[in-house]
Amino acid sequence: MPLPTLLVLEADPPPRLGRLTGRVRVRYADEGSLAASLPSADVLLVWDFASDAVRAAWPGDGPRPSWVHTPSAGVDRLLCPELVASDTVVTNARGVFEQPIAEYVAGLVLAMAKDLPGTLELQRERRWRQRESLPVAGSRAVVVGAGPIGRAVATTLRALGVRTAVVGRTARPRVHGADELDLLLTRADWVVCAAPLTESTRGMFDARRFGLMQPSARFINVARGQLVVEDALVAAVAKRWIAGAALDVFAREPLGEDSALWDVPGLIVSPHMSGDTVGWRDRLGAQFVDMFELWASGRPLPNVVDKERGYVPVRD
Amino acid sequence: MPLPTLLVLEADPPPRLGRLTGRVRVRYADEGSLAASLPSADVLLVWDFASDAVRAAWPGDGPRPSWVHTPSAGVDRLLCPELVASDTVVTNARGVFEQPIAEYVAGLVLAMAKDLPGTLELQRERRWRQRESLPVAGSRAVVVGAGPIGRAVATTLRALGVRTAVVGRTARPRVHGADELDLLLTRADWVVCAAPLTESTRGMFDARRFGLMQPSARFINVARGQLVVEDALVAAVAKRWIAGAALDVFAREPLGEDSALWDVPGLIVSPHMSGDTVGWRDRLGAQFVDMFELWASGRPLPNVVDKERGYVPVRD
Repeated sequence: MPLPTLLVLEADPPPRLGRLTGRVRVRYADEGSLAASLPSADVLLVWDFASDAVRAAWPGDGPRPSWVHTPSAGVDRLLCPELVASDTVVTNARGVFEQPIAEYVAGLVLAMAKDLPGTLELQRERRWRQRESLPVAGSRAVVVGAGPIGRAVATTLRALGVRTAVVGRTARPRVHGADELDLLLTRADWVVCAAPLTESTRGMFDARRFGLMQPSARFINVARGQLVVEDALVAAVAKRWIAGAALDVFAREPLGEDSALWDVPGLIVSPHMSGDTVGWRDRLGAQFVDMFELWASGRPLPNVVDKERGYVPVRD
Repeated sequence: MPLPTLLVLEADPPPRLGRLTGRVRVRYADEGSLAASLPSADVLLVWDFASDAVRAAWPGDGPRPSWVHTPSAGVDRLLCPELVASDTVVTNARGVFEQPIAEYVAGLVLAMAKDLPGTLELQRERRWRQRESLPVAGSRAVVVGAGPIGRAVATTLRALGVRTAVVGRTARPRVHGADELDLLLTRADWVVCAAPLTESTRGMFDARRFGLMQPSARFINVARGQLVVEDALVAAVAKRWIAGAALDVFAREPLGEDSALWDVPGLIVSPHMSGDTVGWRDRLGAQFVDMFELWASGRPLPNVVDKERGYVPVRD
């Protein structure tokens, strides 16, 4: 029986792949060579998960990998109609990013409540100016996204005493439905976007929704930039419709040096790093190798994406 | 029966004092007039709690207030040998600052773990530079100070999954004794100073103790500046004995524009604001009025300072 072929979208081998030596033929592709290499691959590892190349290179009805794994939480860069329609299984990196992102969001909430950005600016100016800050316990948050990341964010905020509502596509125990979002937005001190990017969530944070929020509210996006109408957010912050925002993700990444987003007063910009704690690449490599062992022995894979919905459903 | 005299060290009336109208004669003093006004006062409210004037103005054996209240957690600026030896009762503002300070410390821990200061600096330079950050859950903290503030800090850090040891003067259930501090310091990722300033804690964080800490450790002081040998801390950060520090309190406050502390790379400087959330002055005023009602009706006061020890002991 011939060895299966693992195609890796990336020039360099991911960590831990050596564990599969002798049991798989590993090929590497870049964005240019991907289309030519795909038909002969059994498995595709999209190690360069920031790439959009899979969508363009995916073969129509021809031979194709039976399994595609992306070492990310979101699968939006991957899914094209042909891949959705095919019987290829798509999996993601559930389990790796939840806790880091939850801590990152909690850090932003506390930093904004205590005005740490203002403190650091005053420090640079060598100015002692005592201010009053905001309590976090007892404040209200809405977390949009009821997947494992949204839930981890909610758990961490609740541990800090924040009264936190989680909003998903449909209402279920401990999750509000999308139809309740607008009302919840009118009451929130913190609005956290942790939703998958799908056709129904694209641009959901627009001028109307920022207009629903309280002038004291702050908005945090750790999901995908395209969930937010960036111009509308900038206007909302500039016009004081809301008190501030923190974006870790952007419609176009990396953010260009000439982007207007860099210097909006009240807007914190970070370079898509909320989930990346020391050792994350190693954990992603080890996770893939574990999953490959299951696949090679014919056992069911975890973290299987519902391709129609565009995310891995959570079993409640 | 004549009305009791309440002397307030401060030019302006604290909030909520109007509730006592007709039941107390209120007099105001500044640092200059305090000594002359003290002998005729029954109660002294040190509303200007940052002042050192009480120590200098306290009458020896002569007539003096039977109760002194400071709307702060620490009583170090107040206690002089004559006051300690007298039968005057000293009380503090226990209950007001615990939760705000705990959140402030948690915010610093998360901000340092996620390198928010670095992110804000890169944002100013319009540079996209993704970095790896540190996990907070599973890290280790030592909180020095087993009073209500230290305990609140520990509770909040534990809620974030930080393995947290509390160190007090003497060992008791859930509190390590001072003799265990040095060993704990060698293992901590976060060292938080929340101890009262007394003769036995002054300068306790010195070059030797910074030398015990891990190169990855970060030091946070939300107590009193004099607990730290500031030059030793600056050297420890500059020489990379430790990875960073955040000081909210200083040996001399406000920090002068010419202080070398403002621009030590890796050192966050904030202006003694960790406990001051919106409404704090009102809460301090209301707390004093509540305590005055107890005093006036002869009932026992809460928050009574053990003047020999220099803090309000916690009943375990």
